Amino acid sequence: MKDTGQLVIKNIGMLATPQGATCLRGKEQGKIKILENAFIAVSQGKITAIGKDEELKDFLINDDTVVIDAKGCLATPGLVDPHTHLVFGGWRQKELSLKLKGAGYLDILSMGGGILSTVEHTRKASFEELVQKGKKSLDIMLSYGTITCEAKSGYGLNVKDEIKSLNVIKELNKLHSVDLVPTFMGAHAIPKEYQGRADDYIKLIKEEMIPRVAKENLAEFCDVFCEDKVFDAEQSRDILETGKRHGLIPKVHADEITPLGGASLAAEVKAISAEHLIHASDKGIDDMAKAGTIAILLPGTSLYLDESFARAKTMIEKGIPVALASDFNPGSCPTESLQLILNLACIKYKMTPEEVLTAATLNAAAAINRSSVVGSLETGKQADILLWDSPDLDFLVYHFGVNLVKTVVKQGKIVVDNK
Amino acid sequence: MKDTGQLVIKNIGMLATPQGATCLRGKEQGKIKILENAFIAVSQGKITAIGKDEELKDFLINDDTVVIDAKGCLATPGLVDPHTHLVFGGWRQKELSLKLKGAGYLDILSMGGGILSTVEHTRKASFEELVQKGKKSLDIMLSYGTITCEAKSGYGLNVKDEIKSLNVIKELNKLHSVDLVPTFMGAHAIPKEYQGRADDYIKLIKEEMIPRVAKENLAEFCDVFCEDKVFDAEQSRDILETGKRHGLIPKVHADEITPLGGASLAAEVKAISAEHLIHASDKGIDDMAKAGTIAILLPGTSLYLDESFARAKTMIEKGIPVALASDFNPGSCPTESLQLILNLACIKYKMTPEEVLTAATLNAAAAINRSSVVGSLETGKQADILLWDSPDLDFLVYHFGVNLVKTVVKQGKIVVDNK
Ligand SMILES: [Zn+2]
Ligand SMILES: [Zn+2]
Repeated sequence: MKDTGQLVIKNIGMLATPQGATCLRGKEQGKIKILENAFIAVSQGKITAIGKDEELKDFLINDDTVVIDAKGCLATPGLVDPHTHLVFGGWRQKELSLKLKGAGYLDILSMGGGILSTVEHTRKASFEELVQKGKKSLDIMLSYGTITCEAKSGYGLNVKDEIKSLNVIKELNKLHSVDLVPTFMGAHAIPKEYQGRADDYIKLIKEEMIPRVAKENLAEFCDVFCEDKVFDAEQSRDILETGKRHGLIPKVHADEITPLGGASLAAEVKAISAEHLIHASDKGIDDMAKAGTIAILLPGTSLYLDESFARAKTMIEKGIPVALASDFNPGSCPTESLQLILNLACIKYKMTPEEVLTAATLNAAAAINRSSVVGSLETGKQADILLWDSPDLDFLVYHFGVNLVKTVVKQGKIVVDNK
Repeated sequence: MKDTGQLVIKNIGMLATPQGATCLRGKEQGKIKILENAFIAVSQGKITAIGKDEELKDFLINDDTVVIDAKGCLATPGLVDPHTHLVFGGWRQKELSLKLKGAGYLDILSMGGGILSTVEHTRKASFEELVQKGKKSLDIMLSYGTITCEAKSGYGLNVKDEIKSLNVIKELNKLHSVDLVPTFMGAHAIPKEYQGRADDYIKLIKEEMIPRVAKENLAEFCDVFCEDKVFDAEQSRDILETGKRHGLIPKVHADEITPLGGASLAAEVKAISAEHLIHASDKGIDDMAKAGTIAILLPGTSLYLDESFARAKTMIEKGIPVALASDFNPGSCPTESLQLILNLACIKYKMTPEEVLTAATLNAAAAINRSSVVGSLETGKQADILLWDSPDLDFLVYHFGVNLVKTVVKQGKIVVDNK
């Protein structure tokens, strides 16, 4: 069979998708398009037609067209994971027993464990080792439905290893089906050699890292861990404003462990998104709503750390576009599965299935500047399509803990076929 | 290759297993055997030798022996799921939106939804439909590592459909690799046609169902949902005692939603296990510890219902053997994955990885009278073995939300090979 780039998926039981090229907020977040007994036609990697099965015209199928019979299952846009720490050396499973004895995240940090042990392993790892390790994680993500994924540096914490990490992301983007969107996060922690000299490290970030990342075109976003004992609001602002002057769009890890005003800072610097937000204040939420900042919520991290959960429904009510992400990382959320995140968003945030779908597709895409390309099933968009072992959207978020992905279509090509 | 029933698994990075033919309690629950660089030899479905790789003798491998190179990964006993409601018609995904609007389990029950809609679907379903549906769930369970599984009736709620459900379990046990252990649970709810006439339904259970189930040898256990608005302690005792007279060992769904004294009842009637126990009182826990009743805890249900979690660590401290199960069912825990349950037991119960392993293998096997046959990797036991995409036990409970099973060996035969 010649690959002409023509694909038709027919006999879709339910097609569920948000619509548009920008994020959805408030009541709009829960309004999705549902089409039963539908087909999708694809040409040259893009969606060319969507309709009811009985409207499927002969001219859409010729001898060279790949035809998938969806057998009545659910089709949605590919999932978009807008917050991951994909590139790291080692894992941190040993900290689990520590945690089970009551040590907190910041305790482990000040014990020299935690994030700094990952920094050590990441610095030691070769470029090729990090590529192979990242590839394995991407394989898992893709098999669970993530087709577009943000990836942050932030375990190098020196010029050489931050650049190495971003080049790993660049390489993975070339060789893997998952589309990667890179974020520079040199301000993820204060490295060991700069303990007590935060200002010197911030100087390094501002004067060496950011200019080089921008010049080599290695990232689109600049993220900062705005947190007690890490970077305070003023330091975070300083780094993010420097990034902006070099063309890097701000993102903020905000109000995760302590309410430090990160949400308001994100609004102030016009960040595209603020992340975590477990302890975001009413004022922070209002500021974000006014500024149009997207909230990237990470319920897997709340679960894994057994912490409280962000006020997702309040944010939606206040008009903040809410996105969902895995936060995949070796310390606070060692899971690649965005599917489990969808389940948790229903269970813990009480978001509706429709709000959840928008959050993990269109709003997630908007949070990484990709909503004109992916995030919905619409004519003209990239043909990133998931077929699920599920008859409808409710079932997708209900039948939890097991992988429901049947088929992953990336730019019109089948890249995963689980059954 | 002739199948001589000879199998050797070599190059096991870490072999982790509880030991013994009975359940482990107190500090013993957390004491497991760890062997690094190990091999397992199997003959005729049973484990014949376990040792260090360097002790692997030539006579254990001949031309007809199947040899698996574990490539340094973790090996554990097959998981045992001692509490599932495997056989049911339909699903209940639509109730999710109801729940997201604040309806409780008992609200949905009294609205005629909930369990009674599953009863309707189960009664309508043919024997063959239930077999096919159950088979699909067992395929998923097995792929996530469950090799032995308890299955309850309890969605028929009349003689014909309870017997049908138990015969479905019998049939599934014949045709599927997962070993099934049947429990009769006619006392799962009061069926519609007996509303307001609970005593008449109990009479039906005692005088028709139990004698027939026992006579046809369709179950080993008799379980009762001891709960407000379902069966009170006195009614539960009555049913369980009748079951005992017919050779059915008691189990009790106890203190799940309201503290009704189910734990104490389980101890009193010498039940092999009490399940749920979210609201078990101090006295209930003491009574169970004294009687040696196994606690089967179901953290997936607590998560899915967003309820509180049972006091697992208190139970372990008090000397109760703790087992873990999925509670797989269409209403309160629609997941087949016992792996996720292991993760949750660490995260929410604060059980150690070692306690968790014992809970999902040896103690789970003991809770369904199978601990002399499965539940540990020891010479003479059935060769039910899991190889994991994990270097050690800590990693198994840490890398959550994705399926880590590489290979499932059932009675010495490879039945799942995920990579
Ligand atoms: Zn993060
Ligand atoms: Zn149950």
